[in-house]
Order: sequence, then structure tokens, then C-alpha cells
Amino acid sequence: MPDQSIQVKTVGIVSKPRSESAINLLPPLIAWLKQRDLMVLLDEQSATYVCSSDGLERKQVAQQSDLVVVLGGDGTLLSAARASIGHDVPLFAVNLGGLGFLTAIQVEDLYPQLELALRGALQTEQRLMLCAEIQRHGEIMDTFDGLNDLVLAKSEIARIIDLEVYLDGNFVCVYKADGLIIATPTGSTGYSLSAGGPIVLPTVHAFSITPICPHTLTNRPVIVPDSSVIEIGVREEGSTYMTIDGQVGKLLQSGDRVVCRKSQFCTRLIRPADLLFFDVLREKLKWGGR
Amino acid sequence: MPDQSIQVKTVGIVSKPRSESAINLLPPLIAWLKQRDLMVLLDEQSATYVCSSDGLERKQVAQQSDLVVVLGGDGTLLSAARASIGHDVPLFAVNLGGLGFLTAIQVEDLYPQLELALRGALQTEQRLMLCAEIQRHGEIMDTFDGLNDLVLAKSEIARIIDLEVYLDGNFVCVYKADGLIIATPTGSTGYSLSAGGPIVLPTVHAFSITPICPHTLTNRPVIVPDSSVIEIGVREEGSTYMTIDGQVGKLLQSGDRVVCRKSQFCTRLIRPADLLFFDVLREKLKWGGR
Amino acid sequence: MPDQSIQVKTVGIVSKPRSESAINLLPPLIAWLKQRDLMVLLDEQSATYVCSSDGLERKQVAQQSDLVVVLGGDGTLLSAARASIGHDVPLFAVNLGGLGFLTAIQVEDLYPQLELALRGALQTEQRLMLCAEIQRHGEIMDTFDGLNDLVLAKSEIARIIDLEVYLDGNFVCVYKADGLIIATPTGSTGYSLSAGGPIVLPTVHAFSITPICPHTLTNRPVIVPDSSVIEIGVREEGSTYMTIDGQVGKLLQSGDRVVCRKSQFCTRLIRPADLLFFDVLREKLKWGGR
Amino acid sequence: MPDQSIQVKTVGIVSKPRSESAINLLPPLIAWLKQRDLMVLLDEQSATYVCSSDGLERKQVAQQSDLVVVLGGDGTLLSAARASIGHDVPLFAVNLGGLGFLTAIQVEDLYPQLELALRGALQTEQRLMLCAEIQRHGEIMDTFDGLNDLVLAKSEIARIIDLEVYLDGNFVCVYKADGLIIATPTGSTGYSLSAGGPIVLPTVHAFSITPICPHTLTNRPVIVPDSSVIEIGVREEGSTYMTIDGQVGKLLQSGDRVVCRKSQFCTRLIRPADLLFFDVLREKLKWGGR
Repeated sequence: MPDQSIQVKTVGIVSKPRSESAINLLPPLIAWLKQRDLMVLLDEQSATYVCSSDGLERKQVAQQSDLVVVLGGDGTLLSAARASIGHDVPLFAVNLGGLGFLTAIQVEDLYPQLELALRGALQTEQRLMLCAEIQRHGEIMDTFDGLNDLVLAKSEIARIIDLEVYLDGNFVCVYKADGLIIATPTGSTGYSLSAGGPIVLPTVHAFSITPICPHTLTNRPVIVPDSSVIEIGVREEGSTYMTIDGQVGKLLQSGDRVVCRKSQFCTRLIRPADLLFFDVLREKLKWGGR
Repeated sequence: MPDQSIQVKTVGIVSKPRSESAINLLPPLIAWLKQRDLMVLLDEQSATYVCSSDGLERKQVAQQSDLVVVLGGDGTLLSAARASIGHDVPLFAVNLGGLGFLTAIQVEDLYPQLELALRGALQTEQRLMLCAEIQRHGEIMDTFDGLNDLVLAKSEIARIIDLEVYLDGNFVCVYKADGLIIATPTGSTGYSLSAGGPIVLPTVHAFSITPICPHTLTNRPVIVPDSSVIEIGVREEGSTYMTIDGQVGKLLQSGDRVVCRKSQFCTRLIRPADLLFFDVLREKLKWGGR
Repeated sequence: MPDQSIQVKTVGIVSKPRSESAINLLPPLIAWLKQRDLMVLLDEQSATYVCSSDGLERKQVAQQSDLVVVLGGDGTLLSAARASIGHDVPLFAVNLGGLGFLTAIQVEDLYPQLELALRGALQTEQRLMLCAEIQRHGEIMDTFDGLNDLVLAKSEIARIIDLEVYLDGNFVCVYKADGLIIATPTGSTGYSLSAGGPIVLPTVHAFSITPICPHTLTNRPVIVPDSSVIEIGVREEGSTYMTIDGQVGKLLQSGDRVVCRKSQFCTRLIRPADLLFFDVLREKLKWGGR
Repeated sequence: MPDQSIQVKTVGIVSKPRSESAINLLPPLIAWLKQRDLMVLLDEQSATYVCSSDGLERKQVAQQSDLVVVLGGDGTLLSAARASIGHDVPLFAVNLGGLGFLTAIQVEDLYPQLELALRGALQTEQRLMLCAEIQRHGEIMDTFDGLNDLVLAKSEIARIIDLEVYLDGNFVCVYKADGLIIATPTGSTGYSLSAGGPIVLPTVHAFSITPICPHTLTNRPVIVPDSSVIEIGVREEGSTYMTIDGQVGKLLQSGDRVVCRKSQFCTRLIRPADLLFFDVLREKLKWGGR
């Protein structure tokens, strides 16, 4: 259903780096928004594009805006989603790359769709996020929220890693593999898919756990409820690299435990009414038409 | 949590055909139950094993019993589950084959576990079932409930079939394939797994849709919420064979539509407290140990 | 290198059934050939298209021609290839469907390429064929040559089949599966690919053995030298259907043994010099460009 | 056929590091060999184990020996194979780990089998090796021979890499992936298998090319003749790490080209007559028995 609760006074803009399209779109977009008496906040990248020195960190943009326009591809959106953690601000993502799974708005539809979004006439989708916590010597060292996936992968020095996985305290198995991907439904069409994982609809309340190049050939992707607590024990020092959404990384130590569960936050995506999941999928994956 | 609501007065017994083990187990089991003043109902197969003429159809056994003991493998359990549709009777499944995913009780634990089950001290798990409806010329021809899966597969005369799939009324794609499997979480470790589908935990509220030998290489398994209505259009006359749980089959006609959704019924499985999903999985799939 | 040995006096024509394009192409093609003082032989299908009663069986066409023009898709070519067994006649295959792996000549290039072919200025590729022999009670019941693949698959009545496989007399394993595909390199881009088999270049002297939906998850495709003798034992009566190139079929009996080896014959395909295997592959499989 | 050409006067020994079993086997083995008037050469690791200071580099051991006993697992054998490049010395590999694909001799059979090997009564298998050449600015920077595989994989800093592949000068495609594996038949049961590659019998004259987590879902393993020249262009600086047999590595630069072809050398493995490829495979992969 449409989301009538959005009372937009301030619009943030987050842009992809090194994007000719963003540079061209930005000035008219800012003018268009100001004409409508809206306050406009730019992230540092967007500010650079218009030679302004008023760029804010993405977190600040998200915090102070009622709606964030994302100019970029799925990568820029993932970054904006993590910056929005805790602020529940809807993201209006304009696709500047190939057809994106997440960046739903085409450039040519930018103004009419934005018009609708500002009137609260578009739907917003709540997307499940995951939260990964690094435990070291029994203490929480760090936590990260992500919209797509948590990846534990071998570092350059390792040939294969052992990852000891528990689900809700029960032993699952030791994955001997290049790595392991825990993906949200949103992340299921990303790296997880390349590693052989299934496509999970955004409305399924589940995580998928998919090994990367597993040594044991029977190790298939596993789908678990999003209420699960997935705990992964790292064995060898310096062997394992943890990444969130392919963007934030951390080298783990021997004995570290990574605990992954549903984040208390969601990402809110603004979607045109007629954009259907399988239309994007068919287009991107060249599935058969009617 | 344990299921204290079972007030067992009548115990049904359903047996696998041609099973030496069932023949041996049956007489002492019947005696054991009668000693406890329980009424015992036998299905036709069990009756044959003890040279009785009082065998009932499995549907009747399920209808008139407070608990059904299943002696067999996963196949016997699937049959018992379908016979129990609408009666909400818990199934106590004794494994007479290799380690079964569904037949949780080992023969050597039969009496102690049955003792616990009769006292209501064991957990019962509610397992999602699916319901498949065949529509022809706008009318419902037939409906089937299943615990594992709905399979639409090419018949012998066909080389490949076209299956036009819709989800909640939206077009998904035309699968050009040997067939298509819609599996419940319970069925995800069956035929679906052989066709490349993921393992779905019984607690996930979802169906998996997995093509068999798809012509389009990008056609990956898809996980959809169990609230979905999956509709499949059959194109060519006599090309497509529909099967439920690998046991009940029907040749479809051109223009037939198969509509698959969550059944209004569940299967209730009695499980020993210490039997964990991943223990069975590791054992069956030879996954790595600690 | 170009094949200068072709001294063409008689040209056979083999056409796809129910093909509008073939109907249109045929009269001018026949005229074009006769103008060059070539004798033209038509298969039954082609004869029907021009309302002639002089149609021959495809075997006869292949036997009496110096070059066979195939008007159709990969299916028509497979049929022509089997009809040509023992006659070593080059096949000039004009593609009337989507881009074919085997039907190398595009319609718009028909006359210039045919001109070159008749002058012996085009290359011919020798394609490995397989030969499958059915042994029953120690006797050879039947033999079949094929260009693409030998498939043993479960018949409609079977849920899964056991196929006992030996390689050069040594036990390989019992495949518990929906079936088994033995493919030549030519066949590796056909059904074998849908079942998860690799792409094998036509210049590799090997067969691939790929199970269909194997029960054992570790059962991966196996590549064996084309000097191998692959023997497959069928266990259950009426459970197994054997097919060659997806076109010729036979229901097997319990105890039957199917012996598959390199055929003593090859298929000779005439190919334009600039048609590259990977160009076709990229086009068909939508692989990434430069 | 048995290899009667071995006239053994000097036996080299190469041992796995940190192996309790090797430490225990070594002294009696040396004594056993000296009793037979054979000269014994130790690699540095073996020398350490018997507190000798006469350890030689593995290359020297291979160069000066008529037969090399390898005590270790597949990893130690791969290292010994590369050390033996150019010396055509047979390797007698004793398995000190789990069942190895390459280390054919079980510890309990060491002396009887070694007896046979010294008499020339055992077969030797010639195993295809590959040779990888790094070209930079049109010059050959380095060459490496390997028995198992050449792997080009993304370095830690990269998220995905673009690898532009040519076969015999013809463009294949740009792989967008975590990496690419070119495996010999020997290497097909190693890392290539984990990445989804097929099993290739040692007697097939071919390489397999298998992408690791390809971005394009249609990118299937490709089998090419071992006469092929495979050329891979690296695009981004510092993004790609090249590894031979999982043991020798090198970070590549932007514009580097890696050319992979059949090595002019083979590895000679001494194999017991009754050790069959599929026996090892079934045991390791838990394939179905008879």
C-alpha cells in the first residue's frame, strides 16, 4: 500500500563517485527540489559535483532528511542503506548503471516518480537487514549492519578456511571452503547468486547460507528463518576476512566468533507501483518470456 | 515445547509394504499397546502382516486414531501424512530404512520413545503442506494435498515442456525444462535437492521452485513465501505429468492450470527432543564434522 | 584446411517438417542447383514441399549425394547426420531456426556459401559420433549411432533408476538418478548442458557422462577419453528408456546392458571459415563481451 | 604396461613438513634402502627429521635421483612434481594423509610396493602438466610449470575481476568472476571440482577452464584440447593473483597477459597395478557402491 506518512521537508542526495550521469543530473535536480521549497542536503560526493563545500557525511544526510535520493547503482544504494541505519528514512534510488535490482527508478522517470514520492503516493518496501557482531575473548569488538550480505572469505595467505557454524546454538557443520555467504533476500541476487545460492523473494523472512567453493561437494545452500542466530567460529589466525555488503571489511583473528542475526533496523525502499521483482529478474537473467 | 494435549485412547498403525522389519515389529508392538489398554487400528498392510482381516484404509486409520505409528521409511510417512489430511493426528514414525529425514525414531528407541509420546512428553512439529488444484476450462477438476512436493514433469512422449508460471497473478517466466518442482521445506531435502534446490529449514515459511534440467542456464531455484499462490499453465496436450510426493500422479491436458498454495492442513510429526535437523543432514550428506 | 576433395555432381536436400522458410527456400534453391548442371535429390519432406512424388528416404539421399543441404534447425541436422552414417557425405546445414550450434549457415549467406562449398573452398569438420549397442541375454539386440548423445532415463512408471556403470570393464558406480547422459563434444551444448554438464570443444577426443538429478549429491560430470568403452547395466524391468539424439527411443528390459563407444563413423559438417565456436556460444549463452 | 626402464641406483626422499608419520617412517626406510646398496638423497625437510645436515633442495634431489619417494599428501607430491620438472624421474608417493588422489601407495604397502617399483614391475603414469607464462610489455617475465592448476583470482583489494580470455588467438569471453581455474586432468579433482568443474580422467588430453563464482550465470566449465594456447588478459592493477598448484603465487599487474599451454614435461607417477581411478573417486566422494 502507498505510504502516506511521509511529510517531506528535507531531501538528502547521495551520489556515486566518478559518475558523469550524476554530475549532469545534480544541478537541475537541486533546482527542481528548491523550487518546491524543499531543503536539500548533499553528501560529500554530491557536493564535490556541484563545487559546493557544504557536503555532509552520508550518516548526517540520512539523519537530517525525510527522504534520500540516491543517484548511482546498487553499490551506492547499499552504502546509503547502511548510512541510514536507525533513521528509518525512505530511499529513492535512481539507477545510473545497468538495470539494478535495488535502484528501481529509471533516469527518464526521475521527476514524475519523485513527484509521486513526495506526495506519498508510492509504496515503500521494508527490506530485512542483517547484523554481524564480532566477538573476541568473550567481548563484542564491533557490530555491522548490512542490507545484502555478510561474507567470510579466505584472505590472500590462506588456501582454504575452516568455518565452524552453529545455528541457535546447535552445531551445523564445519565448512571447508573459500568462504561463506550469509545473505538477506535482498542480497540473494548478488554475490550469493554467483556462488550458487537461490533467489529469495524480498518477502521471505529468511537468510540463506551459501558456501563458496566448498571442499565437500554435498554442501548445498541452506535457508534458515530470519529469527535464527548464526554463529561462526574462525580457526586460523589471519586466514579469514569478513565483509559486509562487499564494502566494509575486517581481518579476523583466530578464535574470533562472528554472530549474525536479523538487524533491528530495516531499509525502506521507495518503489514504483508497477515494478515487479520478476520483471527485473527476467530482464537481468535473460529468462524466457511469454 | 512438549505437546500435552494428546489424550491417546486409540493408536493406529501404518506399515510399509514388503518389509521384513515391519512384520517382526508388529506382533510385539500390538501386544505392548493392548497391555496399556489402548485400542489398536491397523491399516490393510499391517493387517496382512498379522493375518488379520480387520485392516482399514489409511484414511480411516488416521481419522479414528489419536496417534498413528508409522513403520517404514520416508515414503510410508508421506503416504500416512496425506491420509491424515484433516484429522490433525500426530504421526510417530519409526525408521525401518536408512536414516530418514522424516522417520525420526530409531527401532531400538521405539518403546521408550512411544512411552514418552503417549504421556505427551514429546514435541510435535507442525510441518507445512501444499495444496495443488487442477483447473480445466475454468473449473476445479481435482485437488491434492502433499507434504513434500508438487512435480510437473515431461511425460515420456515429450522432449521438453513449456511451463508458464505466475506468482500471485504476476508473470514469472516460461520454464523450458524437463519439469518443475515446488517443494515445501520438508520436501527440500527430497527430489528438489537432486534437481539442485537448496535445503530449507522446516521453520521457514516458504516454498522453493526449482526447474529440472532447465534449457535456460540462468534459471535458478527461487524461494517464495508460503502465502504465495503459484499458478502454472500447461501448454501441450499430454506432455506434462503431475505428481504429488512422488506417489500420486495425473497426466495433464493442454490448457490445464495447476494452482499451488499452502494447504489449510499441517502434518504433525512427533520428534524426539534431541533429534536435530543438521545432525540428520550431516549424517545423510556426509558433511564435515567438528 | 579447405576440403578440395569434394567433386560434387549430386546434391541432396533434407528439410525440416512444417517449416514455412523451407517451403520458400526450396524452389529457387532447386533451380539454382539445376542451372549448375547438378543432379538434385529430395528427401520425402522436401518433395512434399514442392509437390513432387520423387522423395527418397533420408538414408538414400545421403547415400546417393556428394553433398547434402540441410534446411532446418539442429534437430533436422541430427537426423540427417544419423541418416548419413557410413556414407561420409558432407552436410551443408542452413539455419532456419534460432542461432544453431550445428546449423552454421545463415539463410542470407546460403548462395555465396554454397558456391564456395561446391568449389571445395570451405572447411569440413569431422565430428565424433557415438555408437550404442543394446545387449540382451548376451546377444546384441540393436545398435544406434548418434551425433549428440545417448540418454538413459527413467520411464514414466519409475521414480528413480539404478544404473550400474563400468568403464573399460572397471566399475565406476551405481548412479541413482533420473537418468544418465553420455554426450559427444557436439552433444555437450545440448541436453547435457541443461543437466549440468560442461561445454566440450569439438576438437576434444572425449565423452562426457552426466547424471540427471542424481540422488548422491557428489555425482559430478565425468569426462572420459573417446577410446573408452562405457557399459551400463539396467536393473529394473520397464524402468529405463534409452534415447539417441533425443529422437530415437527404446524401452529397456531388466538385465539389458547398453555398451557405448566411439562410432566408426563421423559426421562431416561444412563450416564457413569465420564461424567460431565461442562466437556461437557467446551469442547463445549471452556471455560477456569485450 | 610396467616400466622396465628404471635402473635405480639413487633414491631421493621428499617429506611433508610437520608430519609425525614421516618422522617415524624415515629411519627404517633409509636403512631399508641402504641395505639394498642404494644411494639415498634427502630433501631439506627429510634431513631435518633425521637430524642430518645433508639435506638438498628438492630440485637437486629430483635431478640426482633415479626414483623419488614422496612421504606426504597430495600437496607434497605437487611440490615434488614441480621440483622434478625436466628430470623425468618417477615419483613413488606414499600417502600420509587421508586417501589421496595422487599419493597412491598406502603406508602398510610401502615396502612390498617399493620392492616392485625398484624391480621396474610397477606401471608409471605420465601426467599432463601445464605451463604458465607471464607476459609484461611484450616480454616474458616468468614461467611456471604445474601439475594441477593455474588459478587467477581476485586479490584482497578486488571485489570482482575481469579476465579477458582467448583460445588459440580467438576471443572466448570476458569472465567477470572471483577468478578462473585452468586445470589439468590431474587437477580436475582439486580446486576445480570445488568451483563446479567436472572430473576429467587422467587419460583425456584436455584442460578444463572453470570460473569461480562467475557474475554471468551461464558461464559453465569449458573443456579444451591440451594443444590449446589459452591467453588471459588482466585489466586492473593489483587486482589479480596468480597461483600454480595452490603453492606458488604472484601478484599481476594491469596489462599482464598469462599464456597457458601444455608443458613440455610430464610428471611420472608410479602406481600399483590394482589402483583404479574410480575406486579412489568413489571412496573420496562417497559415490554409490554396487
